[in-house]
Amino acid sequence: MPHDSTMRTGEGHGRAGVTGKIRLSQRGWLFDLDGTIYLGDSLIPGADATIAALRAAGRRVAFLSNKPLQTREDYARKLTGLGIPTGPDEVITSSLVLARHLVTLDPGAPVFVIGEPPLIAELAAHGFETRADHRVRWVVIAFDRTFDYAKLNTALQAVRAGARLIATNPDRTCPTPEGEIPDCAGMIAAVEAVTGQAVEVVVGKPSSIILDVALRTLGVTAGECVIVGDRLETDIVMGRCYGLTTVLVLSGITRPDDPRIAEIHPDAVLPSIRELIK
Amino acid sequence: MPHDSTMRTGEGHGRAGVTGKIRLSQRGWLFDLDGTIYLGDSLIPGADATIAALRAAGRRVAFLSNKPLQTREDYARKLTGLGIPTGPDEVITSSLVLARHLVTLDPGAPVFVIGEPPLIAELAAHGFETRADHRVRWVVIAFDRTFDYAKLNTALQAVRAGARLIATNPDRTCPTPEGEIPDCAGMIAAVEAVTGQAVEVVVGKPSSIILDVALRTLGVTAGECVIVGDRLETDIVMGRCYGLTTVLVLSGITRPDDPRIAEIHPDAVLPSIRELIK
Repeated sequence: MPHDSTMRTGEGHGRAGVTGKIRLSQRGWLFDLDGTIYLGDSLIPGADATIAALRAAGRRVAFLSNKPLQTREDYARKLTGLGIPTGPDEVITSSLVLARHLVTLDPGAPVFVIGEPPLIAELAAHGFETRADHRVRWVVIAFDRTFDYAKLNTALQAVRAGARLIATNPDRTCPTPEGEIPDCAGMIAAVEAVTGQAVEVVVGKPSSIILDVALRTLGVTAGECVIVGDRLETDIVMGRCYGLTTVLVLSGITRPDDPRIAEIHPDAVLPSIRELIK
Repeated sequence: MPHDSTMRTGEGHGRAGVTGKIRLSQRGWLFDLDGTIYLGDSLIPGADATIAALRAAGRRVAFLSNKPLQTREDYARKLTGLGIPTGPDEVITSSLVLARHLVTLDPGAPVFVIGEPPLIAELAAHGFETRADHRVRWVVIAFDRTFDYAKLNTALQAVRAGARLIATNPDRTCPTPEGEIPDCAGMIAAVEAVTGQAVEVVVGKPSSIILDVALRTLGVTAGECVIVGDRLETDIVMGRCYGLTTVLVLSGITRPDDPRIAEIHPDAVLPSIRELIK
């Protein structure tokens, strides 16, 4: 394991269980949520103690989710309820990043959203005109459990009238306590297939767009940052591409015998977040 | 234009307007429907006279549609109503061909159908157990205007439990009088993207599977047969691949300046079916 300079966490910071050694010395720490910090509504054992230890040692921590189904406030509330006190500013979602990115491309544009209410609200809050018809300049594609033929048709008509395509995240499936369910890749593929037009930009992991927002939030460079996640093709690929230290945890979607582990080669592979502390 | 041996159609067969020369001498004639014989509910001018002339000259005619939304009886009734008297046996749909093909692969299997009631009825009529859940051996994917997230999720769960994928037709869009709407390619792409599994077989045009059924129906070989259609990537590609004479009509989806016309190179390009008769 590289970067193995460990430091004793500050005992006496008034937190219980913050006594182990952190395995990596970087200042910035990004954590995926689903499959890394919790599974559904259950905390992954040790996640609270690990985050507390990092914070007690002065490390900067943020949470990074490709899931556009909840607001930052929702995630902050959930994490706090699970024993990891968190403010909305410490959470970065693909919805937020998409809205911010689209502001740089086409502020105030009319948009049609294949997505759920929190994403639509985020876009409205960023000044976009969210419409239910095809008279738009952008079709925003997201993980949408209310996706249907009528939305696919509206997307087709919008593209035929000149609209461009942008998406939140490339995930094929989303893990839930009941198993995997279809994620944004299904919606992207359907729209691309019927329109014959490729999505121009997918802002979520492994894109540099979400990473830039995360690094600015933490105030660190990529080289000073660790990303901890359960998904090779998003968390770990992004980290490898942009020079972060990468830690794959096996508490989520990736099986220990996945042949891609050797290919993509994370800096460390751990059973779970608990083992970040010796 | 090859095969330009023409013959005078049998005058005195008691049909009005059956007096022109047929431009091609082949015995078997396959016609696409949407965009070739009619557009929506309107006959393409001259389609009735052309079909009447071919029949009067003893040619064998059948109609071939990738669209799994109506039964053969529906199409026969529609054609008859438009002035082209037709029986159900002269119509070949991707629904029928899929049901027959699946009988050869896995007779009586439980299937989950992403499709509309006529396809479900066709499968039931061929002895399949059509189920609404994921406990199936096949997921059948079709053009489905009632496609939604719940169906996509059922397909994912079925594939995770071992189900195989088969589809009716590869069309991206379907022309309607109001414009193009999403076709089966959207449903196929969504299922393939979330499952990570490719559809094993697509029975509709340009597959040899639907062509075999059509040639058996007509009792002719590929070399004795003409296919007339408006779509390059299905009608004309199939004809070119399997040795039929191909006639592209510009009355449907293909624009005269489409660069693929020169690439795929149909034997003849005509404004519409009317011009098959001199």
